[in-house]
Amino acid sequence: MEKLNNDLFLRASKRLPVERTPIWIMRQAGRYLPEYQAVRAKADFLTMCKTPELAAEVTIQPVDILGVDAAIIFSDILVIPEAMGMPLEMHEGKGPIFHNPIRTESDANQLKKIDPTKELKYVLDAVRLTKKNLNGRVPLIGFSGSPWTLLTYMVEGRGSKNFSEVKKLIYNKPELAHSLLNKLSDTISDYLSAKIEAGCNAVQIFDTWGGILSQKDFLEFSLPYVQKIISQLKRNDEPVIFFAKGVHHNLDKMADIGADVLGLDWTMNLGEVRNKVGNRVALQGNLDPTVLYANKNYIEQEVISVLEAYGKGSGHIFNLGHGVLPDVDPENVKALVQFVKDESIIFHR
Amino acid sequence: MEKLNNDLFLRASKRLPVERTPIWIMRQAGRYLPEYQAVRAKADFLTMCKTPELAAEVTIQPVDILGVDAAIIFSDILVIPEAMGMPLEMHEGKGPIFHNPIRTESDANQLKKIDPTKELKYVLDAVRLTKKNLNGRVPLIGFSGSPWTLLTYMVEGRGSKNFSEVKKLIYNKPELAHSLLNKLSDTISDYLSAKIEAGCNAVQIFDTWGGILSQKDFLEFSLPYVQKIISQLKRNDEPVIFFAKGVHHNLDKMADIGADVLGLDWTMNLGEVRNKVGNRVALQGNLDPTVLYANKNYIEQEVISVLEAYGKGSGHIFNLGHGVLPDVDPENVKALVQFVKDESIIFHR
Repeated sequence: MEKLNNDLFLRASKRLPVERTPIWIMRQAGRYLPEYQAVRAKADFLTMCKTPELAAEVTIQPVDILGVDAAIIFSDILVIPEAMGMPLEMHEGKGPIFHNPIRTESDANQLKKIDPTKELKYVLDAVRLTKKNLNGRVPLIGFSGSPWTLLTYMVEGRGSKNFSEVKKLIYNKPELAHSLLNKLSDTISDYLSAKIEAGCNAVQIFDTWGGILSQKDFLEFSLPYVQKIISQLKRNDEPVIFFAKGVHHNLDKMADIGADVLGLDWTMNLGEVRNKVGNRVALQGNLDPTVLYANKNYIEQEVISVLEAYGKGSGHIFNLGHGVLPDVDPENVKALVQFVKDESIIFHR
Repeated sequence: MEKLNNDLFLRASKRLPVERTPIWIMRQAGRYLPEYQAVRAKADFLTMCKTPELAAEVTIQPVDILGVDAAIIFSDILVIPEAMGMPLEMHEGKGPIFHNPIRTESDANQLKKIDPTKELKYVLDAVRLTKKNLNGRVPLIGFSGSPWTLLTYMVEGRGSKNFSEVKKLIYNKPELAHSLLNKLSDTISDYLSAKIEAGCNAVQIFDTWGGILSQKDFLEFSLPYVQKIISQLKRNDEPVIFFAKGVHHNLDKMADIGADVLGLDWTMNLGEVRNKVGNRVALQGNLDPTVLYANKNYIEQEVISVLEAYGKGSGHIFNLGHGVLPDVDPENVKALVQFVKDESIIFHR
C-alpha cells in the first residue's frame, strides 16, 4: 500500500487513533482563492475540469496554501450527465443549466450508457496527475453526486425552488424514476471504482438534494441507490463518505449502508449524532460556512464548539457543513485550518 | 365568546376531542385558484393586501371552494417592514425586493417605530370585514413572520442562496441584530394582539428562515424572540401556532415557548414528534406540497400516511408542510380536503 506522509484523514475515517483532528473543506479548490481565480481567468469552468494539468493545479492549491489534510479532485458532479449526452452550460454563481432536461421515457432513452474509463477519462487523468504531483503529501478524495441528486439536476434542468419536475416524475412515473436511478447507480459505482483504481484514497458521495424529500421518499428514491453504489464499489479499504445535506432523519439507516463516514450539515448536533451512530461510522463536519464571515476570534470559538460537540477520541473529520463560500476572506480559511490543528490536540490525549 | 359553526380547528389546537381532523392549507388564498387570479387581474399583490374588500374576498374563497376548516387573512409578512419605512417591491414568482436593505446602525435608525393599529390599519379592517362576511362559518387565523425571518428579508433585501448578509450581521454586529430583533418582537406582538382584538381566532408565527441557522444560533437569534412575542400577546384563549420551517431540532424547547401548536414541514415524522412533545402542544402539518402534483389515488394514500403517522386522538391539524404551490390543479386541492374529512373520522372514534 501507498505510503502517505499524512494519513490523519484516513485514520479518522476508520476511527483509528489520531494525534489531532484532520480537516479538509468542501469546495476548498474554489473561487475564494486568488490563486484559483488566476487559473480560472485562463479557462472556463468545464475546460478546467477537462484539462488534467489545470484540474491538478487547483486541486493541490489548498494543500499548499491552507495546509488541509486531504485534497479533493477538482471536478463537478454534473460531468456524468454531460458524458451521458446532456449538453451542460455552467454559470459560476448562477448555477448549471441543462437545456434539454429529462421529462419523458423517450428523453431517458436518449441517454448514452457510458464507460467512465472512456468518456470520463479526463477525470481519471487528472487524478493520476494529481497523485503524482501530490507525491504522498496527503490523501486524495474522489467524489460523485448521488443518483437522486444527479436525477434532480437532470430532470429540473436548472436551479429550482420547489423541485416540481422531479417530484412530478417520482409521483407520476415512479418506474421511470427507478429505472433512471438504477442506471445512474451503476454508472456512479463504475466511476468511483475507476477513480479509486486511478489513485483516489477515499470517495465522497454528495446527496445535495436528499433533504427536499419526505422521509418516506428519501428511503425509496435516494438511500437505497447510495447503498447499491457502495456495495458495488471496487475498493480495498478506501473509505466512503456519504454527505446528505438537509437529511436530519434516519441516521440509523444511513449508518448502515456501508459508508465509513457520514457528513453532516451545520444544522446537526455532532454530539447527538455521535451518541446515536458513532460506534458504527465516523462523522464529518459541520461548521456553518458563513462563520467564515466573522472575525478570527469568533471563528476560533466556533471551532472549539464543533470540536467539543464531537468530544474526545477519534472518528471526527473537521469540515464545513457545506461548501466554502466564494466571497470569504482566504485569510479566515487559513486561520480556520490552523485553529483546528492547534485546538484539536487535547481531544486526542 | 363568539359562536362558530365549525370550531374543529380551535378544538384540535387545544387538543380537545374532535369528530374528525380539521384541515386548512398554508397559502390557501393563492394563485392556484382561478377565482383568486380573477381578483388579482384587477389589482397588484400589495393593492390586494391594502384593500380590505379584495383581501376579504380572496380570504373567503378557499372556505367556499375547498371547504377548509379555517380561513387565514390574505396578507404578507413583509407589510411590517414596509410600514416601518422600507419600500417593498413584490414580484409574484420572483419574490420580494427591498431596494434599501438594512446593513448598518444608521440604516436601522431610519426604521420608523410603528403603531400597527395606525400604519397597518388596513390589515385590521380586512380582518373585521372578513369576520363579518364569514359570519361564523369557520375561525379566522391572523399571522406574522417571526422576528428572525423578517430581519432576514430586511437585511438580505432579496432572495438569497447563502444568507450571507444576515449572517454577517449576527456574527459581526450581534448587538445591532439583537436590538432589531427586540424592536421587531414588540411590533409583532402589538400587531398580532391587534389582529386578535379585530377578530382573529388564532395566530400563526412563520419562521420561514429559522432553518438556515445552526442550533446554537437558532436558540440565540430566533426562538427567544418568538417566546417574547407570545408572552406579550394580548389574548384570551386564542391559539398560537409556531411554524419554523426546516427546524428539525430543539423540539422540546419549541414546545415550551407558550405556543399551542407546532407546525411541521414535510421532512418531519409526525409520530416521532408527537411522542416527544405531543403531551404539551398540538401539531400541524405536514404533507409534502408537491404531492398535489400526483393523481388522486396517490394523494389519498399520502393523506392516510400523514393521518396514521399522527395516530388516534385529537391534537392534529392537517396542513401541507409548506405553502400550496401556484401550479397545482385546484381539483387536487379540493380532493385533498375531502380525503382528510373522510379518512380522518376513524382516528377520532
